[in-house]
Amino acid sequence: MKLEVYAAHTHADERDMRGKTAVVIDTLRATSTIITALHNGCQQVLPVAEVEEAMAMRANMSESTAVLGGERDAVKLAGFDYGNSPLEYTPENILGKTLILTTTNGTLAIYKAAEANEVLIGALINGRSVADKLAADQNDTVLLCAGTKCKFSLEDILTAGHILYLLEKQGIATELDDLGNIALDMYTVHKDNITGTLHGTTHYDILVNHGMEKDVEYCLKRDIVDILPKFSDGLITA
Amino acid sequence: MKLEVYAAHTHADERDMRGKTAVVIDTLRATSTIITALHNGCQQVLPVAEVEEAMAMRANMSESTAVLGGERDAVKLAGFDYGNSPLEYTPENILGKTLILTTTNGTLAIYKAAEANEVLIGALINGRSVADKLAADQNDTVLLCAGTKCKFSLEDILTAGHILYLLEKQGIATELDDLGNIALDMYTVHKDNITGTLHGTTHYDILVNHGMEKDVEYCLKRDIVDILPKFSDGLITA
Repeated sequence: MKLEVYAAHTHADERDMRGKTAVVIDTLRATSTIITALHNGCQQVLPVAEVEEAMAMRANMSESTAVLGGERDAVKLAGFDYGNSPLEYTPENILGKTLILTTTNGTLAIYKAAEANEVLIGALINGRSVADKLAADQNDTVLLCAGTKCKFSLEDILTAGHILYLLEKQGIATELDDLGNIALDMYTVHKDNITGTLHGTTHYDILVNHGMEKDVEYCLKRDIVDILPKFSDGLITA
Repeated sequence: MKLEVYAAHTHADERDMRGKTAVVIDTLRATSTIITALHNGCQQVLPVAEVEEAMAMRANMSESTAVLGGERDAVKLAGFDYGNSPLEYTPENILGKTLILTTTNGTLAIYKAAEANEVLIGALINGRSVADKLAADQNDTVLLCAGTKCKFSLEDILTAGHILYLLEKQGIATELDDLGNIALDMYTVHKDNITGTLHGTTHYDILVNHGMEKDVEYCLKRDIVDILPKFSDGLITA
């Protein structure tokens, strides 16, 4: 199967997704948050591009069932229940509820992938679930990294590399594009020191400087949850 | 100094260049061709985006002084004197002449960089000249890779990595963005086997499949010429 990697949602076109499986990756932190919320019993996630749209949606839903979460530039939004920290989405906070989520890059990437045959939500924490699904289906696949404001984010590239590495270890024959080769190579070289490798990179530093070391530490764990969320018709479910 | 790397001209905005030095990199083959032509005595290169525009320019110039060169999708254009092979631009063919050049990605990248304070033309063959100039000036710099049709080309990333590696070896303090870190890392790991690393990558394979191994072999040599072409007011000179 062919595997392509895009480093930012702005590098890809909706048409690049057609006929393929798409895996949206925003490891710090949107897809890690979505996966964690669903793992902890959240019923569904509504990814929303704009803050105003998210607030309007919330206004139309019952307070007891809807939770409003999100960030801009890594900071929780005023009037929102939670930010974009996966650690906030505990079973106590999210069980049985609908999460309306808007983030700087991740939610835009999810909509960029919408024309794919199937849209999966990936991160390091569920990397093995993603790889197992791709290995089972063997469809041509796009790994669409959210990136940070149109630019590269190394943590997303290493996440793509983790998935490609697991496929390679399973002996799955893949045809990689150039960024796929780079991602696999970078992961293979740095897999025993992911956190050290990310020191000094853009997005990692922004989060650590905002005091979010615990979020980062959690998001860089690998294969700790088994669920593989799917996006379809505006909804993400487990 | 800050150093940013873009993997394709379509990933960058003209505004990203302002106030900085830009180095345009299209190792296979446009910038290698430009550097070689100027090294072999070409008086100036006129990079042109469109084929029709290039032909109209040529029609307005004396046959004895102008040479028309270029390609689309790696193939020489009908009615053109030469393609985009650096090996065609021998002193016999180019000495004292003006080269009008249009290529699929490289010429677009040069115009994308036009708003920089200074626009330099880089490749592996003149990597050391680029690094020496950046080290001397210590301006904030963008390494703008042309990429292949809006996507990553590993040979361009390794060229950026070569330049960053030379700066590091000179002890120049640099602040790299995430793709800069990746480029430096990939180069450091693969510098003793550049050709082997490129086997199976997109652009390399296209050229080899078109029988252009000799072009590729030449373009992957490092630091064999000393000139550093500059682009200004529509003209590239040595």
